[in-house]
Amino acid sequence: MQKLGSHLIVEYYGCNPKILNDLHSIKNHLLIAADKIGATVIDEKFHQFSPQGVSGAVILAESHISIHTWPEYGYAAMDFFTCGVKCDPYQGFTYLKQVFESKLEEVKDLVRGLPDDHSYH
Amino acid sequence: MQKLGSHLIVEYYGCNPKILNDLHSIKNHLLIAADKIGATVIDEKFHQFSPQGVSGAVILAESHISIHTWPEYGYAAMDFFTCGVKCDPYQGFTYLKQVFESKLEEVKDLVRGLPDDHSYH
Repeated sequence: MQKLGSHLIVEYYGCNPKILNDLHSIKNHLLIAADKIGATVIDEKFHQFSPQGVSGAVILAESHISIHTWPEYGYAAMDFFTCGVKCDPYQGFTYLKQVFESKLEEVKDLVRGLPDDHSYH
Repeated sequence: MQKLGSHLIVEYYGCNPKILNDLHSIKNHLLIAADKIGATVIDEKFHQFSPQGVSGAVILAESHISIHTWPEYGYAAMDFFTCGVKCDPYQGFTYLKQVFESKLEEVKDLVRGLPDDHSYH
């Protein structure tokens, strides 16, 4: 595959449920994470669910960061999708691991891009 | 894993580059795709890049849909993340395959949720 983007798919488990239910805190920390990744924030959109949970996306010049939280399970599902070579999504992963007080993480590191076989053209 | 969400990771190849560079068309089609999936749209955010390319995210009551396009390669990287049991993300996948005039697709179908081992608590 001709790599155009890196996509970290992250599950944070055993997190602090208060933080996972605080939209303003999550938004603030995701913007800090974007900076640590070396990405440029273009826009963001977050939503507070009732009775609990937060969803959000940060649009980057280099793709996006998204989050969905289940405070009742201490669980956050995150995606760090970055294109180009200057970003390091693991910097954001490590920062948010600390912020969320995560006790266990699962990470999948996917390559996004073009197939080696271009015969579909 | 205790499933909380379905995450389709989709690469569309050989697409119509004009469509992939048309923000308003992409936004409109992603909102239709959300409806076909059976999801409820909460908000959306799209961005047009210069000289080309569109990024966007649709925040759903059931998680999100995101897109990043490279018109110069006829390539769109998409994510359909839905939680709950009432949504069928493949309906959105199939709809957008037709809309983008994709000639080749690659799909990864991931489960998002809690680990079987809860000893981290």
